[in-house]
Amino acid sequence: MEKTKIILEEEEMPTSWYNVLPDLPLPLPPALHPATGKPVTPADLAPIFPMGLIEQEMSHQHYIEIPEEVQSIYRMWRPTPLHRAYRLEKALDTPAKIFYKYEGVSPAGSHKPNTAIAQAYYNKKEGIKRMATETGAGQWGSALAMGCNFFGIECKVYMVKVSYFQKPYRRILMETWGAKCVPSPSEDTQSGRNILAQDPDCPGSLGIAISEAVEDAVNRDDTKYSLGSVLNHVLLHQTIVGQEAKKQLEKADSFPDMIVGCIGGGSNFAGVFLPFIPDKLKGRKLRIICVEPEACPTVTKGPYTYDHGDVAGLTPLLKMYTLGHTFVPPPVHAGGLRYHGMAPIVSHLANLGVIEAVALPQTPVFEAAVRFARAEGIVPAPEPAHAIKVVIDEALACRESGEKKTILLALSGHGHFDLAAYDAYLGGKLEDYAYPQEKVAEALAQLPKL
Amino acid sequence: MEKTKIILEEEEMPTSWYNVLPDLPLPLPPALHPATGKPVTPADLAPIFPMGLIEQEMSHQHYIEIPEEVQSIYRMWRPTPLHRAYRLEKALDTPAKIFYKYEGVSPAGSHKPNTAIAQAYYNKKEGIKRMATETGAGQWGSALAMGCNFFGIECKVYMVKVSYFQKPYRRILMETWGAKCVPSPSEDTQSGRNILAQDPDCPGSLGIAISEAVEDAVNRDDTKYSLGSVLNHVLLHQTIVGQEAKKQLEKADSFPDMIVGCIGGGSNFAGVFLPFIPDKLKGRKLRIICVEPEACPTVTKGPYTYDHGDVAGLTPLLKMYTLGHTFVPPPVHAGGLRYHGMAPIVSHLANLGVIEAVALPQTPVFEAAVRFARAEGIVPAPEPAHAIKVVIDEALACRESGEKKTILLALSGHGHFDLAAYDAYLGGKLEDYAYPQEKVAEALAQLPKL
Repeated sequence: MEKTKIILEEEEMPTSWYNVLPDLPLPLPPALHPATGKPVTPADLAPIFPMGLIEQEMSHQHYIEIPEEVQSIYRMWRPTPLHRAYRLEKALDTPAKIFYKYEGVSPAGSHKPNTAIAQAYYNKKEGIKRMATETGAGQWGSALAMGCNFFGIECKVYMVKVSYFQKPYRRILMETWGAKCVPSPSEDTQSGRNILAQDPDCPGSLGIAISEAVEDAVNRDDTKYSLGSVLNHVLLHQTIVGQEAKKQLEKADSFPDMIVGCIGGGSNFAGVFLPFIPDKLKGRKLRIICVEPEACPTVTKGPYTYDHGDVAGLTPLLKMYTLGHTFVPPPVHAGGLRYHGMAPIVSHLANLGVIEAVALPQTPVFEAAVRFARAEGIVPAPEPAHAIKVVIDEALACRESGEKKTILLALSGHGHFDLAAYDAYLGGKLEDYAYPQEKVAEALAQLPKL
Repeated sequence: MEKTKIILEEEEMPTSWYNVLPDLPLPLPPALHPATGKPVTPADLAPIFPMGLIEQEMSHQHYIEIPEEVQSIYRMWRPTPLHRAYRLEKALDTPAKIFYKYEGVSPAGSHKPNTAIAQAYYNKKEGIKRMATETGAGQWGSALAMGCNFFGIECKVYMVKVSYFQKPYRRILMETWGAKCVPSPSEDTQSGRNILAQDPDCPGSLGIAISEAVEDAVNRDDTKYSLGSVLNHVLLHQTIVGQEAKKQLEKADSFPDMIVGCIGGGSNFAGVFLPFIPDKLKGRKLRIICVEPEACPTVTKGPYTYDHGDVAGLTPLLKMYTLGHTFVPPPVHAGGLRYHGMAPIVSHLANLGVIEAVALPQTPVFEAAVRFARAEGIVPAPEPAHAIKVVIDEALACRESGEKKTILLALSGHGHFDLAAYDAYLGGKLEDYAYPQEKVAEALAQLPKL
């Protein structure tokens, strides 16, 4: 009998982040300055990010050492366990081997602290006193609140309004770690006030909240902005997850036939699959399946083009799959997947056909989540529940075909702060949202002209 | 540098529970039949418990093997980590070494599944189809919901009303694992209806909820009762925690000068300290400090006498510290500590002077909890936060005296479902409750006459 959990000792924790940029088969299209349309330079980004992170954003080093101060905080919960889903396999009567890499053991309950700690460290190193950010479901905001707290940095979080009210516990968690959290759109920024003037009941979106946080940082000398996903340096910091998972699978004499994860901005899943990209590029057989909500199907339905990361158009233009930066997704419970765009690295790999994507409505996703919770105990967050649905379907397909596939699931966090969504599902009150084709068409009509 | 977390491999997980009964310096006073006043026999307990657990309740074997089916579920999250609180030590500038054994990594978020899984197993083995129980803060109810789910047993939970409304997420968690949960006092039992007739706004208590669950089990052939604390077999199942902690401390070449934990019914803390009792009885210097709320100071203020475990007087008489079985404690946020009695084993050891107890008001407890969360990341449940306050005070005393004491903290669970309490504390709205002397005197006047 193989183990239920494959664990690593602290000494086995990776000491570098893996940078995929030099390994890409074609170079990543650069970010462009929104005013000039020319590739952004480090100097362009300096008003909002510290230089340490800007260097990482553009680095072509294969591995970047994790500072000891960051490692020592990682060690409070890392390496995280790799579970073998024996009970789920049995419940599905499948010959497939299902492993899940579980990031819910972090104090914030998700993978987000991997970059929050790193970002707070590099800001602290350059003397920054205050950080501003946005958050969807609140996972990122709580992670940055914790990261800032460890380094004595003040933290202001703009939280997407629909989630702020659906998930009050996330707000309290941020406050417990000393951060200030406001619902977005807020009265605290010009971007927020403009939107509230047009639509006082606007449920908010990640794009709007990003505009608010960027504006906050640009307008204050003591403040830098922090993004919890999308950018290269964020994905970089998350690669500790995939590197660990790879080591753990090696200990179980396994290599995945497929890796499945959810994508909102793309960082959680990229953190898991990027360390496997060199294997795939060398010809190793491996499917990498990204799962997104049908209500916000960026990679499955959007064009691959240059767009802003935020609603107000303050960020650089990124080459990515996008539903248009003015698109406000329906209020699905997976708040972390309500983003109009996608990480340029994830978009590039999808465009090259190295990775694939599917989109799902939320009811079957919650059905899969409850099935998982009843088999494995852990109650997953709504975001990775999207990936669970695909894993269950693939495992059932193996039952039909008799194939003993090895599946790696990126289980990015627990659902302890998302139980209102489970309540809705169990009470038969969960609403599904069709693909909002017309709203997307409107938003795409407003793509920036190059 | 020593490790941040001392972990054990699955193979190092203890395979037996430790039974303190044969090691006690004086025998434990027996439980008495409420009608006859004579020691209860296995046959007396058979209507409410399966025989496997009744045997354990009275066993004088030193070690009882953990069934493989139970071990295989334990391995989903066990062995749990032992953390070294480096960041807290630094924040306190103390020479003390603080370790904490963290049970919050279980899917239910506390130590409670250790006995829930075992109890569900022994019930299943004897063909039981349905289990009924009570819960305070909801930690026990959610653990039993999960345990029953794994073994295909129906689960009904009577949840103390004040917690049911303060902590809706715990109810949803139980439902996600397939259990049915009602606020207690409820209309579903005669005990509940009697209390509601007298006081429709009764906030409930563990004693009342126990009466309801016991009545439910007695009245249905397919149903047995399950208790989440107090009884010998429950403490037995929790000893896996202390046995792991002892192994982990040995790996760090350490032995505690003091062990600190919170006590409600006593099982979490007994699970940690019982495996250290033989060392203490052999003369090893070791303080064992139990921490309880000032609003419900069972061991520090109650008499050591025979009393019922529940309000309606349905349970056997247990020799224990008690505030009277009709006492309804004030609605402090640490719902798991709102119990009028105390485990007979814990009471006996306190009466013998082997362990000691202190009582604390909740405001300084939450202050300590926030301090802990900001140092160590983990947001503790309000119950173990009581122990954290004592650990911090002891560590500060070490700073004064220069002593390098080794402190072991029993961190029984996280506070993810208790954030409303943190909200109240951070918003300056937390109420303290003085020792309710008159209500206790009234309840003590109703102690059963022997």
